[in-house]
Amino acid sequence: MSRPTASLGADFEPAVDDRYLDDYIVGATYEYGYVTVGEADIVEFAGRYDPQSFHADPAAAANGPFGGLIASGWHTAALTMRVLVDHYLSHVASAGSPGIDELRWRRPVRPGDILRVRATVEAVRVSESKPDRRIVTTGVEVLNQHDDAVLTLRAINLLLRRWPAVK
Amino acid sequence: MSRPTASLGADFEPAVDDRYLDDYIVGATYEYGYVTVGEADIVEFAGRYDPQSFHADPAAAANGPFGGLIASGWHTAALTMRVLVDHYLSHVASAGSPGIDELRWRRPVRPGDILRVRATVEAVRVSESKPDRRIVTTGVEVLNQHDDAVLTLRAINLLLRRWPAVK
Repeated sequence: MSRPTASLGADFEPAVDDRYLDDYIVGATYEYGYVTVGEADIVEFAGRYDPQSFHADPAAAANGPFGGLIASGWHTAALTMRVLVDHYLSHVASAGSPGIDELRWRRPVRPGDILRVRATVEAVRVSESKPDRRIVTTGVEVLNQHDDAVLTLRAINLLLRRWPAVK
Repeated sequence: MSRPTASLGADFEPAVDDRYLDDYIVGATYEYGYVTVGEADIVEFAGRYDPQSFHADPAAAANGPFGGLIASGWHTAALTMRVLVDHYLSHVASAGSPGIDELRWRRPVRPGDILRVRATVEAVRVSESKPDRRIVTTGVEVLNQHDDAVLTLRAINLLLRRWPAVK
């Protein structure tokens, strides 16, 4: 990530360190950016975690199935997480994540692409096992400079109510 | 990853650089390991990609919701990918991945945990748009030293037939 990202439009009213479950309103959409990723970063991540030649070796990638180097999909996902942690997920009320559904790598991410992250609150559900928290489902789209989606996923997060909570 | 991983039991007959679609047989299961991850690696990954305090700050994590530092779920996923690339995914016939379903972080991964990756070929389907390749679906479980699953996911991969292919 080349520089700090910022909100690209309307943001939550409470800052990320004073934000609770109740601030996540179904239907609200937020955008944050921009993330750029260079060839050296792509190669370094791939060398550690995903050393397929089209991610880790620029010369081989030029003759490979994508006609050039592309970022590991896990790298794009990790960069997306960074944006969500910096701007979207509460720093005081987040109680972890059971997982992710429908992670899709829709288009290649190439060196120099300029990405932004769009997060839409899709659902808020009671956690049956833990009534002080609820399950927030977020639709996440990562868009490139051509407004094409490169990655989409559905994030599941546990969030705590503002304390003392009104039940 | 502290050292190269290896097959922990029966492996594919063809090596990973001579393995094609036809070698992925529904129902076959393979295990590879071991992966250990130390505190410094957990903190470094988290500092870049997931700086929540329970991943990035050992002191804060000790008083946090998990009673100690735990790896970012994206870090565990990236380490899993490394094992799959080294041992499971063909180096000659892999044509990328459209995505992942049902990624679940089932238990925390703590410094020093010893992980292994179990991959089961769940389905092989024709790609309707590209008849020279098929879609292989793999159930992946990551187990710790107590045989508890810490991560599960369903991977979707495009793989090419051995060339010249028998249609």
